[in-house]
Amino acid sequence: MSASFEPHGTHLLVDFHGVPQALLCDGESLSTLMRDAALAAGATVLGTHFHAFGLRAGITGVVLLAESHMSVHTWPESGYAAFDIFMCGPLKPRKALALLARAMGASRHDVREIQRG
Amino acid sequence: MSASFEPHGTHLLVDFHGVPQALLCDGESLSTLMRDAALAAGATVLGTHFHAFGLRAGITGVVLLAESHMSVHTWPESGYAAFDIFMCGPLKPRKALALLARAMGASRHDVREIQRG
Repeated sequence: MSASFEPHGTHLLVDFHGVPQALLCDGESLSTLMRDAALAAGATVLGTHFHAFGLRAGITGVVLLAESHMSVHTWPESGYAAFDIFMCGPLKPRKALALLARAMGASRHDVREIQRG
Repeated sequence: MSASFEPHGTHLLVDFHGVPQALLCDGESLSTLMRDAALAAGATVLGTHFHAFGLRAGITGVVLLAESHMSVHTWPESGYAAFDIFMCGPLKPRKALALLARAMGASRHDVREIQRG
C-alpha cells in the first residue's frame, strides 16, 4: 500500500447469532450496509464483490478498502453471520461495527479484536 | 451459504515480516499463489479480486471461496504482509498456510487461529 498507510491495524472478528433469516439472504442490503459501515469508519471503498449461493441461501461478500477490507459470510438456516472489519491506520472500525450491530438485530454477538502489523 | 456448508470454521490470521519487497508488489504472483493455496486446502474458488496501489506499492486482494475467503494486504516498504485464511467446514487451512509460508520467505511470521461459528 502507499507509504501514507501505516501497516498497524485493528481487525474485528464479529459473529452474529439469531439474525432474521431474510436479511442473511439479501446480498444487496448487505452490500449497501457494509459500504455505509466502511464510510462511517472513515474508510475509502475500492470495490464490493458479493456472491449469492441461491434463493433463500447464504451470501459471501467482501468490501475492498484502501485501508484493508470488510467481509461477510452468512448461513441463513442457522441465523448466523460472520463479519470481519480489518482497517489499518487511524480509522474507527468500532463505528462500522455499531452500524452492523444495529442492522443485524441479532440475539447475540461476539466480538474479538486483534491487532495486526 | 448452502445447507451443505456448516457454519463452524477456522480463521487463521497470519502476519509475515521481512518479506522481499518485489514479491509484495506483484499482484499477479500473489493472486496465483493464493488460488493455489486455496486449492491445496481443498477449497472451491468463486473469484479473485486484486488491487495494486501503484508501481512498487502495495497490493490488496481477496479470494472468495465457497467456504469463506482468503485475503492479503501488503506494505512493501515495511516488508510486511497480512494474510487471512478463513475456511468453514472440513477443509485444511494449514495446508494453505504452508504454501504461503514457503513462498513468502519471511524472516518471521505470526499465526493466530480463531474458531468461528
